[in-house]
Amino acid sequence: MILHFRPGTAEEQVQAVREQCHANGIRTRLSPEAERPILAMVDKVPDALAQEIQQRPEVVDSFVPKGAWRLVHRAFREKPSVVKVGPVRLGGGQVVAIAGPCSVEGREVMLEVAHLVRDAGAQILRGGAYKPRTSPYSFQGFGVEGLSQLKDAGQAVNLPVVSEIMDAAALPAFVDHDIDCLQIGARNMQNFTLLKAVAQAGKPVLLKRGLAATVDEWLYSAEYLAAYGCPWVILCERGIRTFESATRNTLDLTILPLLREWTHLPVVVDPSHAAGIARLIPPLARASVAAGADGIAVEVHPRPEEARSDGAQALLPGELTALVAEARIQAAVTGRTFHQPVG
Amino acid sequence: MILHFRPGTAEEQVQAVREQCHANGIRTRLSPEAERPILAMVDKVPDALAQEIQQRPEVVDSFVPKGAWRLVHRAFREKPSVVKVGPVRLGGGQVVAIAGPCSVEGREVMLEVAHLVRDAGAQILRGGAYKPRTSPYSFQGFGVEGLSQLKDAGQAVNLPVVSEIMDAAALPAFVDHDIDCLQIGARNMQNFTLLKAVAQAGKPVLLKRGLAATVDEWLYSAEYLAAYGCPWVILCERGIRTFESATRNTLDLTILPLLREWTHLPVVVDPSHAAGIARLIPPLARASVAAGADGIAVEVHPRPEEARSDGAQALLPGELTALVAEARIQAAVTGRTFHQPVG
Amino acid sequence: MILHFRPGTAEEQVQAVREQCHANGIRTRLSPEAERPILAMVDKVPDALAQEIQQRPEVVDSFVPKGAWRLVHRAFREKPSVVKVGPVRLGGGQVVAIAGPCSVEGREVMLEVAHLVRDAGAQILRGGAYKPRTSPYSFQGFGVEGLSQLKDAGQAVNLPVVSEIMDAAALPAFVDHDIDCLQIGARNMQNFTLLKAVAQAGKPVLLKRGLAATVDEWLYSAEYLAAYGCPWVILCERGIRTFESATRNTLDLTILPLLREWTHLPVVVDPSHAAGIARLIPPLARASVAAGADGIAVEVHPRPEEARSDGAQALLPGELTALVAEARIQAAVTGRTFHQPVG
Amino acid sequence: MILHFRPGTAEEQVQAVREQCHANGIRTRLSPEAERPILAMVDKVPDALAQEIQQRPEVVDSFVPKGAWRLVHRAFREKPSVVKVGPVRLGGGQVVAIAGPCSVEGREVMLEVAHLVRDAGAQILRGGAYKPRTSPYSFQGFGVEGLSQLKDAGQAVNLPVVSEIMDAAALPAFVDHDIDCLQIGARNMQNFTLLKAVAQAGKPVLLKRGLAATVDEWLYSAEYLAAYGCPWVILCERGIRTFESATRNTLDLTILPLLREWTHLPVVVDPSHAAGIARLIPPLARASVAAGADGIAVEVHPRPEEARSDGAQALLPGELTALVAEARIQAAVTGRTFHQPVG
Repeated sequence: MILHFRPGTAEEQVQAVREQCHANGIRTRLSPEAERPILAMVDKVPDALAQEIQQRPEVVDSFVPKGAWRLVHRAFREKPSVVKVGPVRLGGGQVVAIAGPCSVEGREVMLEVAHLVRDAGAQILRGGAYKPRTSPYSFQGFGVEGLSQLKDAGQAVNLPVVSEIMDAAALPAFVDHDIDCLQIGARNMQNFTLLKAVAQAGKPVLLKRGLAATVDEWLYSAEYLAAYGCPWVILCERGIRTFESATRNTLDLTILPLLREWTHLPVVVDPSHAAGIARLIPPLARASVAAGADGIAVEVHPRPEEARSDGAQALLPGELTALVAEARIQAAVTGRTFHQPVG
Repeated sequence: MILHFRPGTAEEQVQAVREQCHANGIRTRLSPEAERPILAMVDKVPDALAQEIQQRPEVVDSFVPKGAWRLVHRAFREKPSVVKVGPVRLGGGQVVAIAGPCSVEGREVMLEVAHLVRDAGAQILRGGAYKPRTSPYSFQGFGVEGLSQLKDAGQAVNLPVVSEIMDAAALPAFVDHDIDCLQIGARNMQNFTLLKAVAQAGKPVLLKRGLAATVDEWLYSAEYLAAYGCPWVILCERGIRTFESATRNTLDLTILPLLREWTHLPVVVDPSHAAGIARLIPPLARASVAAGADGIAVEVHPRPEEARSDGAQALLPGELTALVAEARIQAAVTGRTFHQPVG
Repeated sequence: MILHFRPGTAEEQVQAVREQCHANGIRTRLSPEAERPILAMVDKVPDALAQEIQQRPEVVDSFVPKGAWRLVHRAFREKPSVVKVGPVRLGGGQVVAIAGPCSVEGREVMLEVAHLVRDAGAQILRGGAYKPRTSPYSFQGFGVEGLSQLKDAGQAVNLPVVSEIMDAAALPAFVDHDIDCLQIGARNMQNFTLLKAVAQAGKPVLLKRGLAATVDEWLYSAEYLAAYGCPWVILCERGIRTFESATRNTLDLTILPLLREWTHLPVVVDPSHAAGIARLIPPLARASVAAGADGIAVEVHPRPEEARSDGAQALLPGELTALVAEARIQAAVTGRTFHQPVG
Repeated sequence: MILHFRPGTAEEQVQAVREQCHANGIRTRLSPEAERPILAMVDKVPDALAQEIQQRPEVVDSFVPKGAWRLVHRAFREKPSVVKVGPVRLGGGQVVAIAGPCSVEGREVMLEVAHLVRDAGAQILRGGAYKPRTSPYSFQGFGVEGLSQLKDAGQAVNLPVVSEIMDAAALPAFVDHDIDCLQIGARNMQNFTLLKAVAQAGKPVLLKRGLAATVDEWLYSAEYLAAYGCPWVILCERGIRTFESATRNTLDLTILPLLREWTHLPVVVDPSHAAGIARLIPPLARASVAAGADGIAVEVHPRPEEARSDGAQALLPGELTALVAEARIQAAVTGRTFHQPVG
């Protein structure tokens, strides 16, 4: 249960409700919301107690989430939340583009990509240093050295960076290199040990949806992050696994309007892995923003045929520029603004 | 194999190739294309014969489709084909809205809906007279009387009409009432007997994708229609069945850019059955047009709570007006035009 | 709601309940059950009326099905029902083997197959005269002539026959040739027009599960058959469509024990279409009977490489013999008997 | 490519081939096979080199796997491999039962369960100390203390134990407590960091299939284990995610005969998570062994209603005894033996 108190309710009144709950073995969490107290009961509240609390005059509204997600539930905030990645704000009516190579592949090419990403008008630079690969014999990423190359490239063009973390043991490296946003990949969405560790890094997290994860499970994983210390979660839809094999995955845009109702978290869409082929990506990116996405994440490479992973789905520089321009238009026609390029 | 002849190739030269094929037991079909002869070999062509034919100077291009679809393959036409439903043209750079109630429910309400559909700016009126219902005890539609009510309402507002046909035996009723477009429902997409019969009615057909049909199978069903006499096929994506149960179905927009490459047929999207809830539909309709759909098909009802079927996913009149306005904007920003209202 | 009356309840008492329901607009259906009156209310019964009826002393038990299936619900019969196909009994503790070619391909080969099917110990002969084919250019079956060849072959070896019907218009041909059991294919499971027509033919029906049909929808289709006149339905699981492409389909044996609880109808399993490769079939057939199937249906061909359809999944004669022997053992170790070969 | 050398081929001849490969940048791995040298080329071998090698007289057979799995490929061993868990042997014609509670819940109850597991005739004791839970607020397991309780219980009844590891950091605890087999859960099947770490522990690994993992991806994860030092992998099918929601998951037995052809690894089936309801489990366990499984893994609890997780799918002690008895019969009728209870 989530309670909305009347704006201006005294702290002691909220505290009284919390203590009543705690006395009944029910854990509570207070929203960071500034406009009014909002309180979530983590555990199930017995009917009698729920009724009693709801009748208090300072409690003006109460919500019972479908699942046991509380801190990421829409009602836990007055407005959709805004997550900051460096100086870039995700959510709250702005549209953002995240772009970069699938893998960080070397200092020089990383810098080259960083420039083209910035020039195309994207606001966040991405790049994989640790790569989850289906085969043990495939290129597994440059590791720490990749983080260093990515961060340096980001600084050179004044863009914040995001990179995937696969293991809690690598967390110090991400913190040392001041990676601005930590990405949890689709295959690790229910790696609960990793979620708990990453939640405590003090960094925003881009949480990809698992290949066969329901929206419900996805929000539970976001709740893990929030419950263990990270309220700055960005959801990333990247396509689900279905019977259809004509495309690599099926981009699930149907859930975008639903997520708006279920959670306050911002949502970005990565159309690259669903399309699997670069030329299918631009229409899907357009559609994602039209459906309400707060941002798009795509892969780009100056010479896709040389990419060490997923070259088939990498956009060319000119295609990225066009895609960003279209995202800008879609932001406008859906009553939002495209995020100003940093600096 | 599909052959493109040099524009202006003499009929006899094309005929010579056909006869060579027929002599080898290979059926051929000639495209209705005006700009140049285009010829499809229905059956597999032996390598030696294929090489010989490709070397003829009048053959300038040849294509080998992935599947055995030929007549609906992109290469069987110079440009994407345009299908006329009454005076309305689907495909070829215009965007169209199809709207109406799930079921035809009576003369008066049908007329009421027809007016609001026209006033909202939609160009085609839909309504179900024969309803495929999961339960034998649910309302099964008004049948012939429903067709009459639908057509009369369409004529009253000067809009062509589309309605689902479930059985070849009902074909005369559809023809007698001059239903402008015949719809094959998702559950009948591989009812091959129905496809063969409907193909011979001389009417355009709206072919919904089956709930678990691959794009490949869908195009084969379109090929049935074309092979048996109906080249005027409109594909309709309406959501596929996946593991996700938060929404009724998963709208598969990922395939839209792919369909542009695989087939010349126009594609409309019905977001209602995927969303399952009316308020999720407008963003999905926007996204569909942004992804390249040639039209959208939605359900509308003046009083959804009174609808005899699928009331939960029926738009209100005002919502339809807003949705059509947004489709118009999406048509513009994707370099197309919204079809002029009829009359 | 389904009511069980005390054994020996007078007809008038049952009639009184029915009239009370009818007066409230609730349709009722009486079970053919001999041991006691069992009554199904087709429509939803208001709580007050339900309570009143349940309190009558002659009503000893009542059930509320999950869906609106009534006549196929387990509670509509005392014991699992037994369906007769010619002299063969499906359900009720016997295990049956159905075998034959995918397509009927000629009088001679059909007779050859019939002999090997009988010699292998199978009890029912199958063969497709009307073939639902994905491509319009594939072999579509011999039609009426195929029915004649199938029936003649069945008579020659004294086995009843089953064949797929795709169209209500073909029903007279099936009746004229005295086809013992009509098969509804997976693609037509929700072809409601066909279900209604076939239900009235006075023949048992083998109802295949749709490729993406839930158990709930499948039972609704069985309910169509029962509601329109055919209580002799045999369910046939044949594999569902999933993300896994290593096998043609995924055989869903998980639902077998569930079906035992939800319906009184017998269930057979066709492992051929799931496996897609002949050598995978025997272990799956064994597993099907072990999981509780009342029978197995497989395809067999004396020379699979010559088969006009699905040759890759056709068993060789010797493989069929071994498979039947194993089914016999599985019947025994699960406390059932293998059906005695006919004649 | 995998090469089979003639039995008795001299080590130097094999070494010559390896060096030729290494000189071309191709990594090689030698099979532990005793009967003859078997060599896997990890990387793709150019056609010319492949031909040259295949023509050597000491090379009698060569195989090209479908994927890039090598060490787990069927051809990398003469016979299906046998994996030892303590004194218990999995694979090679014996059938094994693994049983225990979902979670380790306390010293006393663990001991109680251990006795009933042994008395029922199972050979391996399971129990979760670290629990992957969808919600952060659910019971997460007793951790190290749980491992201690599990091992002590196993020793009390003389059964080896298996438990899930979710994090490489917990590996020392598993080794310290001498957990006989490490389980990788479905959600961590593609947690490659965990796979690499666990592979080096010198323990056999039970690798569950991911909820939406293809057979191909599953074998790649097994290949990770083998490539990083653990050849003792037991595959565990536990149900996949499909559109069907009547059961918790869909047990995929269709792949069992396929796995026999693709890999030499033993396969066990866990029917509990697919069924989701205890009373559906026994028929599915029977079917699993009938389809060829080398073992079954089930959950059991003396008082399921008190279980801290997944009580609905826990068998009662008597049900386990019956299930083991049936597995014994299925082993016999499929030409195998049921593993002798330890001690």
